[in-house]
Amino acid sequence: MKSLHVALVPDEIPESGLQHTQAALVIDVLRASTTIITALAEGAVCVVPVAEIAEVNRLAANLGAGAVLGGERNGLRPAGFSLGNSPLEYTPETVSGRTLVLTTTNGTYALARCKGAGAIGVASFRNAAAAVRWAGLQLALGRELIVVCAGTRRRFTLEDACLAGLLAQLIQAEVDELVLTDGAQAAQLIWQGWQQDPLAVMQASAHGRDLAQMGFRADLEFCAQVSVVDMVPQLLNGRLQPA
Amino acid sequence: MKSLHVALVPDEIPESGLQHTQAALVIDVLRASTTIITALAEGAVCVVPVAEIAEVNRLAANLGAGAVLGGERNGLRPAGFSLGNSPLEYTPETVSGRTLVLTTTNGTYALARCKGAGAIGVASFRNAAAAVRWAGLQLALGRELIVVCAGTRRRFTLEDACLAGLLAQLIQAEVDELVLTDGAQAAQLIWQGWQQDPLAVMQASAHGRDLAQMGFRADLEFCAQVSVVDMVPQLLNGRLQPA
Repeated sequence: MKSLHVALVPDEIPESGLQHTQAALVIDVLRASTTIITALAEGAVCVVPVAEIAEVNRLAANLGAGAVLGGERNGLRPAGFSLGNSPLEYTPETVSGRTLVLTTTNGTYALARCKGAGAIGVASFRNAAAAVRWAGLQLALGRELIVVCAGTRRRFTLEDACLAGLLAQLIQAEVDELVLTDGAQAAQLIWQGWQQDPLAVMQASAHGRDLAQMGFRADLEFCAQVSVVDMVPQLLNGRLQPA
Repeated sequence: MKSLHVALVPDEIPESGLQHTQAALVIDVLRASTTIITALAEGAVCVVPVAEIAEVNRLAANLGAGAVLGGERNGLRPAGFSLGNSPLEYTPETVSGRTLVLTTTNGTYALARCKGAGAIGVASFRNAAAAVRWAGLQLALGRELIVVCAGTRRRFTLEDACLAGLLAQLIQAEVDELVLTDGAQAAQLIWQGWQQDPLAVMQASAHGRDLAQMGFRADLEFCAQVSVVDMVPQLLNGRLQPA
């Protein structure tokens, strides 16, 4: 029996993590997952997600000139970092050929929560179609699929649930006899309730409004573009690289 | 600014609990919150929610003949208990004038998670209108209102989210200038997606289907009745009593 679950907040995943028979697709639409996908699409060698700024600095010292530091605290670039968490900063000029060491408040936490899974991928609206193909492959391998919404500070966010709903809808259309859990059904209803308009969701969600007020309105438009990148970052040995 | 949040799973509440400036309305539609409301409506003196069966037995020994033991593990009545978790078992004959010591898997956990809140109430479809009045009072007292969905084994359930959506809708209609968080908006969309039909939701949700298969179909119909009890249980010093 093929099964698709949506964890609407990361702490729905047990603290002990996931099983090898499960695959996780992690979503942090605003903005970590979009930034990771953009960095790799623009030529970064890999992305190393880390929880603490101290660890970023330690890793960066080891990696030397091959590394670039990116991320946010309270939405803003930490002192001493080259790049913030706006995906628009991630261009061939800033990341091509380099290892991105990235620390964000929510996306990094959600990735860590999925430890133990058979496979861990990253999705945003920008790589939705590719994420659906990746999900179909995981289900074909016999894994239970869990879409994990990073949320904001452990709380539910509308934009992550909406992307989860879009993915659930597209995966269900591709995969026969897929069982959707209550969470997956709810994500679809939330997405349908927003009339499938990603930008409208982001303009209404608490985190989207915060970002707009902080001057990141262009980020919302960028994060709302659907299926413009044909690649899924996958976590292996602590590094995210194209699957 | 008056604010209404819906925690779609109990672990969205921090492990440290809530603040005195917050009021929590706890939902476990199938079946703990419905059972608590029914027991008090049928004349139980109070309900003492406890996490562990060992503690139930210890409390019962202290309380003697004035106590009745109720609850479930995996949906069924534990050995040595008089009553299970079916609200239909809670009648004047079984509970009137007695203290109900109740242990359930999810509802008890959600109540415990709300420790520290300025007020903790219990809602089900059966006392929805009274719960809305209670919520309005909490907001008028200047408290932030948090509707907490107990879910099943820490996971999201459709029926709890639907009741949260109904309550959010009714509270919003009563209270001026109420700000709904992302979670509260999502609960409303889920409830609207189910065309506001509680029984249909329960017949489709994973936990509702499990209960129906276990022979508790009549419980679903009972739990789906809206606003037939005009009382809100409130937790004070470890005991639930009519507010």
